[in-house]
Parts: sequence; structure tokens; C-alpha cells
Amino acid sequence: MGVVTPPTDRTPKQDRSRATRRRLLEAAVACLAEHGWAGSTVSVVAERAGVSRGAAQHHFPTREDLFTAAVEYVAEERSAALRALPVQGRTAVVAALVDLYTGPLFRAALQLWVAASNEEQLRPRVTELEARVGRETHRIAVELLTADETRPGVRETVQGLLDMARGLGLANVLTDDTARRQRVVAQWAALLDDALN
Amino acid sequence: MGVVTPPTDRTPKQDRSRATRRRLLEAAVACLAEHGWAGSTVSVVAERAGVSRGAAQHHFPTREDLFTAAVEYVAEERSAALRALPVQGRTAVVAALVDLYTGPLFRAALQLWVAASNEEQLRPRVTELEARVGRETHRIAVELLTADETRPGVRETVQGLLDMARGLGLANVLTDDTARRQRVVAQWAALLDDALN
Repeated sequence: MGVVTPPTDRTPKQDRSRATRRRLLEAAVACLAEHGWAGSTVSVVAERAGVSRGAAQHHFPTREDLFTAAVEYVAEERSAALRALPVQGRTAVVAALVDLYTGPLFRAALQLWVAASNEEQLRPRVTELEARVGRETHRIAVELLTADETRPGVRETVQGLLDMARGLGLANVLTDDTARRQRVVAQWAALLDDALN
Repeated sequence: MGVVTPPTDRTPKQDRSRATRRRLLEAAVACLAEHGWAGSTVSVVAERAGVSRGAAQHHFPTREDLFTAAVEYVAEERSAALRALPVQGRTAVVAALVDLYTGPLFRAALQLWVAASNEEQLRPRVTELEARVGRETHRIAVELLTADETRPGVRETVQGLLDMARGLGLANVLTDDTARRQRVVAQWAALLDDALN
């Protein structure tokens, strides 16, 4: 007695709440990616996260709150991971940027995006979210590619690369497009390197 | 009497049937673009086209038949229009190719694509349709850009351009992205022209 303290007693309430929140956000992105907007409700996500429906609603009062927060949270996690990569050549950077658009995060964002195009309630929130995530991704891309945006055309070159990455993500939704994508990425990484030098 | 024949008498039955089919297909694409897959049924499309539900089902026995046929029909119309363009410089060609991805056809195809990612019944048909439309668009792009695909990298250069166009289409779904898109297209058209020469 007095030697082993049960772990829950050492976990502050705030940390547990934060962990619950994170579990809900990760379950929400996985749910959206797999089942689409129509199949994604707060109840389904709460069950998947192993959290009570009441606790889920304490964190996220509405379905819109939960899913926009989820896409934003995962996008921030991915951005942070990208910024933490060691300094690399441009070909590796282009591949890493394109990877942002080929996993469950992109699938989830796409589902939210398309749902927002038909649902007025969701539209302003998703539009604002996408603008924020888009600006942040652009900033990271410029930094990792060591692109000098004071030179004419450089800004648009980088933007076009991210548009290409988004299009490659879309091409990967129904089929595994990995082999073709790698060839396209290799070729455009070389063209981009020429354009930025 | 005998001078004015009512127009319906001069229209063969087959022509009327073809016109009905076309009205249904165009209404289906508009419906999908505006209301998404969940809001698009055969009844809604029949009403929009001014055709009876029975006549609609005579042409398209299932919902999947109607909507995949609709996206294919409109894609073919757009391809034919693109092939009929007068010979132009590469910048104009790039702009015309990107335009394929920014109107109601792209919106409709996107809705079908995302629905197919969650619905097993739709998935194989949409996957096959997208592969076919993708190959055809690539062929047209190579031809209009006078790109020599026997040279290494040229095939991937053109593919990457179409991936960028698809990504630009996606960026235009929630907001009017025209001004930014025009700058990106101008810059990438110049990069492409260098790469293809």
C-alpha cells in the first residue's frame, strides 16, 4: 500500500478529456472515409471510439462540429508530421506532399467536401476549413521546396503542384493508382525542380 | 388541309425515343450535380425531364443504369466538342482541357465517384466508366497538345496535367476559384510547353 498508485489516479481529468477528444476525432475521420457523410453520425463515431454518446456530445454538440473538427485535427497532425521531416531533396518532398492526398484523411475530407456542396448547413464551415488547410499546406510546401515566391510564377507553380496532388488523390479513391502516380510524381518533380531553380 | 402536316407525324418513333433518352440523360447529370447521389432518383429525373416514370424505366431499368449512362453520355458530348475545336496554341488547349473539369459534368461525375466509394453496387460500374473516360481524355489531350509520347516522360507530363485539371475541378466545387485557376493554368501551360518542346 502506498507503493503502487493506480494509473487512473495519476492521470489528471484534463488529460483524460483530451484523450477522449482525440479518440473521437480519429474515429470520426475513419468513419467518414469508410462510410461517407450519410453513414457518419455522432452515435456511430462514439461507439467506434468506445465513448458514451453523452460524452461525445459533451465534446461536440452537433454532427457538423464533430466532423469539421475531425478533418481539421487530422490535417494539423499531418502538417506537423510533414514539417518534422528531415531536410530532403525536392523529389522526396513532392512525394511526401502527394502522400497527404492519398490516405484516409483525404478520403474523409473529400466526403465532407462533397456533402457540403449539397448541404447548406455544412457548406460555410467546410469552405472556411478548406481555405485554412489549403493556406497551411501551401506554406509548408513553399518551405520544404525552398521555393522563392518573390520570383514571378513560383507561387502558381507550387499551387499547381498541390492541385495536381489533389487530383492524384481523387484518382486513388476507387482504385489503387500507386504505380501510375509514382511515374507522374517522378516526372513532375523533375519539371518542378527545373522551374524552381 | 394537306399543306401543314403536324410535326409529330413527321418525326419517326425512333427519333422521338432518342430525344427522350437524351432529355433523361441531361436531366440526370444536372440532378446529380445539384443534389448529389442521395437526392437523385429515377423519379426525380423523369419529372425534371418531363417524361413519365414508365418511359424513364423503359430506357433505364435501374438507377445505376441511368446515372452511369448519363455521366458517360455527357462526357462523350464534351470530348466531341473538344475534338471539334479549331487548332490552337498550347495555352488555349490547356485552358480548354481544364474547362472539362469545372462545370456540371465534373460535379456530377464527382458525386457519382464519391457515392461509388461507399456503395458496392455502384463501384465496379463507375470504376470502369472512369477508366474509359480517362483514357479518352488522355488521347484527346495528346492529340490537341501535339505531344510526342514516344519521348520518355511525355506520357507522364500529360497525365500530370490532367491530374492537375481534376484537382482544379475539385477546388472549384465549394467556391468560385476562377481567378486563382487562371493564374495557375497560365503558369502550368508555360511549364508544359517547355517540357513538350
